[in-house]
Amino acid sequence: MAPGKILVAQGGGPTAVINQSLVGVALEARRFGHIGHIYGARHGVRGIIDENFVDLTQETSHNLELVANTPSSALGSTRDKPDAAYCHEIFKVLQAHKIGHFFYIGGNDSSDTVRIVSEEAQAANYPLRTVHIPKTIDNDLVGSDHTPGFPSAARFVALAFAGANLDNAALPGVYVGVVMGRHAGFLTAASALGKKFPDDGPHLIYLPERTFVLEKFLADVKATYERYGRCVIAVSEGIHDASGRPIAALLAKEMEHDAHGNVQLSGNGALGDLLCQEIKTKLNIKRVRSDTFGYMQRSFIGCVSDVDQREAREVGEKAVQFAMWGDRDGSVAIKRTGFYSVDYELLPLSTVAGKTRTMEDEFITESGTDVTDAFRMYLRPLLGSKMPDAFRLRHNPIAKVLHC
Amino acid sequence: MAPGKILVAQGGGPTAVINQSLVGVALEARRFGHIGHIYGARHGVRGIIDENFVDLTQETSHNLELVANTPSSALGSTRDKPDAAYCHEIFKVLQAHKIGHFFYIGGNDSSDTVRIVSEEAQAANYPLRTVHIPKTIDNDLVGSDHTPGFPSAARFVALAFAGANLDNAALPGVYVGVVMGRHAGFLTAASALGKKFPDDGPHLIYLPERTFVLEKFLADVKATYERYGRCVIAVSEGIHDASGRPIAALLAKEMEHDAHGNVQLSGNGALGDLLCQEIKTKLNIKRVRSDTFGYMQRSFIGCVSDVDQREAREVGEKAVQFAMWGDRDGSVAIKRTGFYSVDYELLPLSTVAGKTRTMEDEFITESGTDVTDAFRMYLRPLLGSKMPDAFRLRHNPIAKVLHC
Repeated sequence: MAPGKILVAQGGGPTAVINQSLVGVALEARRFGHIGHIYGARHGVRGIIDENFVDLTQETSHNLELVANTPSSALGSTRDKPDAAYCHEIFKVLQAHKIGHFFYIGGNDSSDTVRIVSEEAQAANYPLRTVHIPKTIDNDLVGSDHTPGFPSAARFVALAFAGANLDNAALPGVYVGVVMGRHAGFLTAASALGKKFPDDGPHLIYLPERTFVLEKFLADVKATYERYGRCVIAVSEGIHDASGRPIAALLAKEMEHDAHGNVQLSGNGALGDLLCQEIKTKLNIKRVRSDTFGYMQRSFIGCVSDVDQREAREVGEKAVQFAMWGDRDGSVAIKRTGFYSVDYELLPLSTVAGKTRTMEDEFITESGTDVTDAFRMYLRPLLGSKMPDAFRLRHNPIAKVLHC
Repeated sequence: MAPGKILVAQGGGPTAVINQSLVGVALEARRFGHIGHIYGARHGVRGIIDENFVDLTQETSHNLELVANTPSSALGSTRDKPDAAYCHEIFKVLQAHKIGHFFYIGGNDSSDTVRIVSEEAQAANYPLRTVHIPKTIDNDLVGSDHTPGFPSAARFVALAFAGANLDNAALPGVYVGVVMGRHAGFLTAASALGKKFPDDGPHLIYLPERTFVLEKFLADVKATYERYGRCVIAVSEGIHDASGRPIAALLAKEMEHDAHGNVQLSGNGALGDLLCQEIKTKLNIKRVRSDTFGYMQRSFIGCVSDVDQREAREVGEKAVQFAMWGDRDGSVAIKRTGFYSVDYELLPLSTVAGKTRTMEDEFITESGTDVTDAFRMYLRPLLGSKMPDAFRLRHNPIAKVLHC
């Protein structure tokens, strides 16, 4: 049996509900009598290497509940990606602290970290139970119906586009909203849930699952603008040309890469500005604006899906249950069992680690610039309750007197 | 006595509560028996010229209430600024439709429009009662404690920075958030209300009320980064050099101007990207990100101050009451009468029209990069109830074993 101390950490980009999972682990672990202490590592695996631990056992349940409702990683995060040597350092620390259970809350990269740590532990014959707890606004983990963090980010994107559409209707022009998502378009596609009336935007949605062709884009915008006198566009930061080269990267003078070899796509407005410039000059439209949603979509305080909160809490709780009552390492996955209901299961780490889910074809229309009703049915229950709604004045025109 | 038909229109940039004022006019006017019809002009004064009117009398009160809670101008807006000839066209239409009361909901530019229309009406001896109803997220109208629309936008900015600060604490680096506000820094200053703990961001706030010096900015960022290991910065889109030239304008290849002669500052990410580039290259900091809040801050659906909603409704109601029971044209102003309570008065149009309020010196610290407690006391009640709050894990460090 693994030693009676557990360690939990958070990796990768924060979400609005990642602390729900942290608190799910901390509170559920208290139910098990043989668990002595619950440690939290500051800033992910980096905090393990540095022995930068806090004692979550000394937290009040009241404060844990308040932290659970606070966005972004309360323990801090990291972009470090452990290799074998890094993992060796992790083991030395885990052994020294007599830690028997390791829970890592994160996305693709973090699940791969858990896989490496799990394999290294087995190779070193160290009795460690490791469980990956899913989290990513990109919704790109293989094997899950969806991932905690995505629903709240999707709610933000849907509401942002609902507002941007109303703004654009009041002062017509072209509006480009750039949404996060390197390879998976789920979050960009969520913009469609901000649409209510047939002539509402987003009128066009560009996803990384489809090749982006600038000429086709301009033709789409022109046709929409001619039809509605305005055009609202949702664009994924990950759109790319036929060779897979990101459109955003065509602009950046110096491309910034993180430790995982990813190009930095977020944190600047270059893509939106380029597309605006193209529309202004090629289509001769005057009022063209872009917003890059940036970090707001993952950590805005006060825009959270209650469904997401509940599920993020549950994946943390389930991780502890799987670890205590199961006999294998794994990754917690959400399975949809009804409209709307879910259950959880533990997938082998190799099923999830380092793999990327993208939007299924059934979710994208043939035109490639809109989502299907199947996607709307998939996403709507995740957005949670109390979704704000937009209403219009009804059409009661007054007859002209002078210009009749 | 003025003829018994009223006309209401909305001008300038939309806000989250501008329809509250519209509905305040429509519902209050129903109480006056001699009012025959309530017309709404589509897209501001442009809709008057075009005789593009809708009949608000034929709306149900239920639908009006739903529209009141919907952000952005339900009638549509315009950036047109009427000159004498334009106003002559307006009169022709008003006369033809027997309109006796004109209510225009808008900011500085719109108040100037109302002033011109009012003066033209008097010169033409046409019996028109005109009232300007205040609205602007910039909070830059002279004579008001604050303006409807500003509190909800301020709430968005405060919450966005609260989230950005949490995100930045989890993955430390430099974060630059660019906020709307051409001449007045109120909205940028609202970022300070997202701060809870002493080491929280925004650590630095740059307002258009103070000259922006790039070298000073870089020194501030460097000092903050060295102190906290991170830095969250709020920057107004309107920051300018000593000669008054906008920093944003130094970048734009082709500067876009609207009908009022204003340079386009919003709708692109250029300012944030420039500042990030400077920080990266001059301070050699790797993780530097910027978000430009853009249109979200004025029309995000689901982030509204209930105080703002109530007051925006009341300025509409009061405008009708002033028009019906008073004997002069004017602009409705909010006066603070308690902590927190307000009353309304009708200011002469000449007091408000075309003038710009900027942040009072008492609201800005001597350093020029933070706000005073006086500002916090001024703004806090406007943000409304149910402000989401951020909580932290308490400090319970575990002793190191290996690295002790």
